[in-house]
Amino acid sequence: MPGAIHILNGPNLDLLGLREPHIYGHTTLAQVEAMCRDAAQGDLLFAQTNHEGEMIEMIHAAFGTAAGIIINPAGWSFRSIAIRDALAAFGGPVIELHISNIHARDAAHRDSLISPVATAVIAGLGAQGYPVAMDALYRLIS
Amino acid sequence: MPGAIHILNGPNLDLLGLREPHIYGHTTLAQVEAMCRDAAQGDLLFAQTNHEGEMIEMIHAAFGTAAGIIINPAGWSFRSIAIRDALAAFGGPVIELHISNIHARDAAHRDSLISPVATAVIAGLGAQGYPVAMDALYRLIS
Amino acid sequence: MPGAIHILNGPNLDLLGLREPHIYGHTTLAQVEAMCRDAAQGDLLFAQTNHEGEMIEMIHAAFGTAAGIIINPAGWSFRSIAIRDALAAFGGPVIELHISNIHARDAAHRDSLISPVATAVIAGLGAQGYPVAMDALYRLIS
Amino acid sequence: MPGAIHILNGPNLDLLGLREPHIYGHTTLAQVEAMCRDAAQGDLLFAQTNHEGEMIEMIHAAFGTAAGIIINPAGWSFRSIAIRDALAAFGGPVIELHISNIHARDAAHRDSLISPVATAVIAGLGAQGYPVAMDALYRLIS
Amino acid sequence: MPGAIHILNGPNLDLLGLREPHIYGHTTLAQVEAMCRDAAQGDLLFAQTNHEGEMIEMIHAAFGTAAGIIINPAGWSFRSIAIRDALAAFGGPVIELHISNIHARDAAHRDSLISPVATAVIAGLGAQGYPVAMDALYRLIS
Amino acid sequence: MPGAIHILNGPNLDLLGLREPHIYGHTTLAQVEAMCRDAAQGDLLFAQTNHEGEMIEMIHAAFGTAAGIIINPAGWSFRSIAIRDALAAFGGPVIELHISNIHARDAAHRDSLISPVATAVIAGLGAQGYPVAMDALYRLIS
Amino acid sequence: MPGAIHILNGPNLDLLGLREPHIYGHTTLAQVEAMCRDAAQGDLLFAQTNHEGEMIEMIHAAFGTAAGIIINPAGWSFRSIAIRDALAAFGGPVIELHISNIHARDAAHRDSLISPVATAVIAGLGAQGYPVAMDALYRLIS
Amino acid sequence: MPGAIHILNGPNLDLLGLREPHIYGHTTLAQVEAMCRDAAQGDLLFAQTNHEGEMIEMIHAAFGTAAGIIINPAGWSFRSIAIRDALAAFGGPVIELHISNIHARDAAHRDSLISPVATAVIAGLGAQGYPVAMDALYRLIS
Amino acid sequence: MPGAIHILNGPNLDLLGLREPHIYGHTTLAQVEAMCRDAAQGDLLFAQTNHEGEMIEMIHAAFGTAAGIIINPAGWSFRSIAIRDALAAFGGPVIELHISNIHARDAAHRDSLISPVATAVIAGLGAQGYPVAMDALYRLIS
Amino acid sequence: MPGAIHILNGPNLDLLGLREPHIYGHTTLAQVEAMCRDAAQGDLLFAQTNHEGEMIEMIHAAFGTAAGIIINPAGWSFRSIAIRDALAAFGGPVIELHISNIHARDAAHRDSLISPVATAVIAGLGAQGYPVAMDALYRLIS
Amino acid sequence: MPGAIHILNGPNLDLLGLREPHIYGHTTLAQVEAMCRDAAQGDLLFAQTNHEGEMIEMIHAAFGTAAGIIINPAGWSFRSIAIRDALAAFGGPVIELHISNIHARDAAHRDSLISPVATAVIAGLGAQGYPVAMDALYRLIS
Amino acid sequence: MPGAIHILNGPNLDLLGLREPHIYGHTTLAQVEAMCRDAAQGDLLFAQTNHEGEMIEMIHAAFGTAAGIIINPAGWSFRSIAIRDALAAFGGPVIELHISNIHARDAAHRDSLISPVATAVIAGLGAQGYPVAMDALYRLIS
Repeated sequence: MPGAIHILNGPNLDLLGLREPHIYGHTTLAQVEAMCRDAAQGDLLFAQTNHEGEMIEMIHAAFGTAAGIIINPAGWSFRSIAIRDALAAFGGPVIELHISNIHARDAAHRDSLISPVATAVIAGLGAQGYPVAMDALYRLIS
Repeated sequence: MPGAIHILNGPNLDLLGLREPHIYGHTTLAQVEAMCRDAAQGDLLFAQTNHEGEMIEMIHAAFGTAAGIIINPAGWSFRSIAIRDALAAFGGPVIELHISNIHARDAAHRDSLISPVATAVIAGLGAQGYPVAMDALYRLIS
Repeated sequence: MPGAIHILNGPNLDLLGLREPHIYGHTTLAQVEAMCRDAAQGDLLFAQTNHEGEMIEMIHAAFGTAAGIIINPAGWSFRSIAIRDALAAFGGPVIELHISNIHARDAAHRDSLISPVATAVIAGLGAQGYPVAMDALYRLIS
Repeated sequence: MPGAIHILNGPNLDLLGLREPHIYGHTTLAQVEAMCRDAAQGDLLFAQTNHEGEMIEMIHAAFGTAAGIIINPAGWSFRSIAIRDALAAFGGPVIELHISNIHARDAAHRDSLISPVATAVIAGLGAQGYPVAMDALYRLIS
Repeated sequence: MPGAIHILNGPNLDLLGLREPHIYGHTTLAQVEAMCRDAAQGDLLFAQTNHEGEMIEMIHAAFGTAAGIIINPAGWSFRSIAIRDALAAFGGPVIELHISNIHARDAAHRDSLISPVATAVIAGLGAQGYPVAMDALYRLIS
Repeated sequence: MPGAIHILNGPNLDLLGLREPHIYGHTTLAQVEAMCRDAAQGDLLFAQTNHEGEMIEMIHAAFGTAAGIIINPAGWSFRSIAIRDALAAFGGPVIELHISNIHARDAAHRDSLISPVATAVIAGLGAQGYPVAMDALYRLIS
Repeated sequence: MPGAIHILNGPNLDLLGLREPHIYGHTTLAQVEAMCRDAAQGDLLFAQTNHEGEMIEMIHAAFGTAAGIIINPAGWSFRSIAIRDALAAFGGPVIELHISNIHARDAAHRDSLISPVATAVIAGLGAQGYPVAMDALYRLIS
Repeated sequence: MPGAIHILNGPNLDLLGLREPHIYGHTTLAQVEAMCRDAAQGDLLFAQTNHEGEMIEMIHAAFGTAAGIIINPAGWSFRSIAIRDALAAFGGPVIELHISNIHARDAAHRDSLISPVATAVIAGLGAQGYPVAMDALYRLIS
Repeated sequence: MPGAIHILNGPNLDLLGLREPHIYGHTTLAQVEAMCRDAAQGDLLFAQTNHEGEMIEMIHAAFGTAAGIIINPAGWSFRSIAIRDALAAFGGPVIELHISNIHARDAAHRDSLISPVATAVIAGLGAQGYPVAMDALYRLIS
Repeated sequence: MPGAIHILNGPNLDLLGLREPHIYGHTTLAQVEAMCRDAAQGDLLFAQTNHEGEMIEMIHAAFGTAAGIIINPAGWSFRSIAIRDALAAFGGPVIELHISNIHARDAAHRDSLISPVATAVIAGLGAQGYPVAMDALYRLIS
Repeated sequence: MPGAIHILNGPNLDLLGLREPHIYGHTTLAQVEAMCRDAAQGDLLFAQTNHEGEMIEMIHAAFGTAAGIIINPAGWSFRSIAIRDALAAFGGPVIELHISNIHARDAAHRDSLISPVATAVIAGLGAQGYPVAMDALYRLIS
Repeated sequence: MPGAIHILNGPNLDLLGLREPHIYGHTTLAQVEAMCRDAAQGDLLFAQTNHEGEMIEMIHAAFGTAAGIIINPAGWSFRSIAIRDALAAFGGPVIELHISNIHARDAAHRDSLISPVATAVIAGLGAQGYPVAMDALYRLIS
């Protein structure tokens, strides 16, 4: 059985499915979590925060515990060197996940600072990106 | 009677009137709040925080509640995509307010990331900008 | 009674309300002038020109005469150093006014050269920006 | 049963697994094709070319035929507007796939011109990216 | 006896000595604090936080209390105008400290936004930078 | 019979054929006008001005009158947002015409601000560009 | 009778009229060719290719044969120095033709590398650009 | 006796000596003209305008008449390609004159578009720059 | 005896000596090949192509066969990441050769993408660059 | 009688009049010195060096001695912060002199680092620039 | 006892304390040397030069002799690759020292080319930076 | 017999073979000189200096004496306009030589200012570059 996976969600994702569905779709974060639990092959931690400091500490908490991290850094993707540094210090695989195809969006949402320290990047698959990322992470750690 | 207005103040504004008066003037945030309450034509929420996560959640709290938001994002103006995303998801009018004329300041304080998602921008009026912004917001929502 | 206010309007504003209402609204410049005369607390000069040279000379004419200037420089905002220099030489308060939120528009309409020499900047309030700017200017000069 | 999937591979991918395994891994393109055929839930076209013109015509051939395209544009990602235009004209979903995490590489391999016209982007999963992309594409078209 | 010194440490520094020792060395933050206490010639406040809001409030707490601040802003160095503004409002000397030589690192870790408002900058001395910065600060305030 | 065509010429074009013939050729503006009158299939207005304000008002005069505009904005091409805005507000087709191939010239004469609001652009045909542009405009409005 | 004209069409133009008519219109390349044959005053070569190498060799084939070239380089406009070099070596007039107004499109389709070596540039006239360009070329070579 | 010299002054120079003396000094334009008439060795035309179109036509009027031009383009220096084109078409020597040292000013007043077409540039000598420029021009034309 | 050398020539070099001799000289490619055969100390493959795909496959064909490659990538130097990737995968020495001094040419012909993956670069020696490059390559592989 | 003037000439000016007369004219530096001695109204030091260190020390030698400096920094204009710093520390007027109009030259010779610390800049008058600069300097110090 | 330390000072530092004390303070270089000799724990070489070549040779002289170098490169910091290369070739620790906080100065004095090859950087401590840097260097080499 | 060749070496090349052999190899400058003397077909001047002024004067000394110059400008390549100007004034052929492939190095060592005025550039051949450059120079001058 693969090790624990930590799925960490950044700012405004608590609104998922409730606001701007033309960009982010209609699935709520609770529904996403349910999809992820269905797809899980082992332990799963699923969390969301709007506080950068909490996200940094969630990443620290994964050290030595999680077999891999899936992170949707949302708006922090483009600005937070602190989260980038925390992820860079994690030894295991990190998949950066975006619901929309950030590469096709405006300049403010295009160049992720997180990507250079991630193992892999998946963007544009909507809520389906979560189980796809889990499949990908299980392949990386097996 | 117009709907409720939320006036949200970002980092370091708790120091208003106490520090660097050559840039920000001598009026304290408590005095500003008093000016705003005098000018209010309906419900008024007036808040300040130094925590980005709290600001994001204050914006979320305005969803479906506030008729409009006046936000002085201070130092986050130039860096926080997360706050920008939260404001973009709010359906009503948003007025971005700056005490100083940010367009006349140094490069670090000049190009607000918030402005493209705001309805209107008001800068350079000192503490008087608050009642002016309230007047403007009441005009927008009437 | 506050001193005289000069409200100066730049190129294409004679078309206001007649063209591209999705950007600039349906109020004509004559209606704007009427709104301003209603809001005036003292002398008011209200003018429009499509000629940069005339605008420069209107600004010169305000020297020693006007208590403050409200200028909507329209297309010259982004290109005219000559108007910027004229405004910088004026001693009193200058409010730069834009009907649309220029910060949310395309690159050609985004970075005003006038803003660094203005006292304050107001953008995005539509025709309502005029009385709001007058209110703001009266506060600055009182 | 889902529709046909076309998996198109660009320049130098005929060398996969034979050269620079520290970047691209040890799996050959033939082995990748075998993995894909195992994962296929319907018709599968799998092709490689070093000729931009052939790639353009392969994309044209997918019009009205393929339910979706997975493309690894390799070196063309960063330079070929012609391939971008061909993909933009295709009506169905397009997944852009990269074996390495291009966002973590040097400047010449970082900003894909293809991404803005792709539906989704997957990078950094090595040869495992192929079955993951297939899984993702089946989700998109179902 | 010199006044109190506040030494403030930013995000991920709670990991010091535990992760990526090839960049940051093997000394833990607790050991650094011990070194600092040994070197202190007066009151010493030594703190760390992963929360930007807490850091801003720690800086506010130094107003009127601390004779000087030594700050290692870590990842916030490159992005936080809010912390920059807080430090700029502090009247006394500020020494910005970096364990690694940030000027020799990648583009994301090179240009500190904090430096222009600091009195002095010290980078590249590893954990030894702390007592060196204390020595420097005592010289500045004597 | 097609509607009226307005051909508007910007600064220094009164010198055409008299100065710098190695760039602009030997045909004078009067000769160009004669060529245009020969080629006209309906009403033709042909004008030149060195005053930006006059050009703006000529464009305004075309509103509701002209079936299309051919404009050679000369030096204003690269600097006048005001003319760009006037043309953008015109509802009919606009052909931007340049006697020389501006794309092959120095940096100051290369990137026209007018082009993004023009329907079509024709450059490099010398004086022959005028009848070619008329032919093009008649095709667009038929 | 004027010399032979070669009209060369680049990548994806075989799709003309079949895909993305909102950008490129409804006329097919066969219909364009028919329009051109109607407009021809002498020999006419009309060709299309998706292969850069073939385009280069078509240009070589025009040396000493064609009185002029009309080229629609499509996606190669923005990337192919090799085609630019081939055209620069051709002695006669070259007209660069674009169906859409590339100057009004996104950054990827805006700055043609071909233009500086072309005699003239015509863009934005749709399929009508072909007979207009032929008219222009006949004027240049007569 | 040397030929006639035309000294042309651009926007806001009618204010010279009256406004912002810390930048431009206390000498008025009338006093400058008197200094120039004293220094003249032949015919002298001395003019000022705030209208770009008038300046262009003044330059045209110098064609075939003036032995040389001294121009202080003021704010147009940085934006007017139309004036640059007019000066480039003039056959004789052109001296660009600035009262302040523009190279030491802010970014908006630093890079003159006129300089590349001028024969010589003199900046920073205050009102004394006028007789110095006249001396220089007489040397060039003798 | 040294191993085989492959000399690969890119687009438009079939025109060498026939076109633009002021840039490229009068020696034809056939004459260059003859010079190279005279200078060869072992097996020599000498080829030219206008097709990027063929060039990529020629480079692949050199794997395990050639002791070294001399490549004149011509117009592809500045745009083809695909050729760069192919050369980077070749294990032996690669000399990039340019007939003209590309560093002294216009911006479009100045910064080669190939150079960072080449062992050495030789530019500006005209046709003599070929035997010089061969001499250099023999020195590298001996 | 005005104080002593120091005229300092930088690298390669010992070649003046001997090399590249199409750029720099036919007058030698000895002839320039003679012209300057004729124009001198008081003590004159005239020197040239190709050594940056010597130039710095010549500037130091002017401290407290020279009433003003005329410097032709030649190639150091664009690169030497050390000379800029030396001139900035000199208290009296500094005139930067260039024989050619550097603003009209290539990018490498266009933006002088010296200009922002000079009092005035004179460029493009050839050897005549020397007596003109002396005249200007005498005016500044009188 | 620690090894010898070489303290090398660049251009204009012979003026230290004599010029521009608002930037550099009132301590002379001789006083700085005395401070350093007081702080020395072993051999100390202290030198200054305005000649880049001498500085390069001083650095070479430190090879195999000095335990570490403290260099204040002054104006060369921003321009001299030659000094950077010399320092990069030195095997021991190098501390780059600046009297002022260069990061807070103008663009010309902000980005040191030396920093990426230095071990550590200390800036902004005035003359006190010298003993601080010595303390830091002794810590590095012990 | 060909004319004299001057081989001029810039800063730090006296260290060749002694420092950083992973970049520059193990051959000393004395050994390089010996190789060059072996390869010389006529008079040979071989020199090295760390002083820019000396290098400029060495280049001046070559005027009218040397048939050609081979220069390894080392660190000056990227910063010295003065050396560039000196070389540009030399009438004969100039070969710029680099031991390492500068185009593959970091940004500070990549874009030579010398290259645009050199006849040819050779980089990346190690010490073997010297005899190769001599062979190349003999070909150019024969």
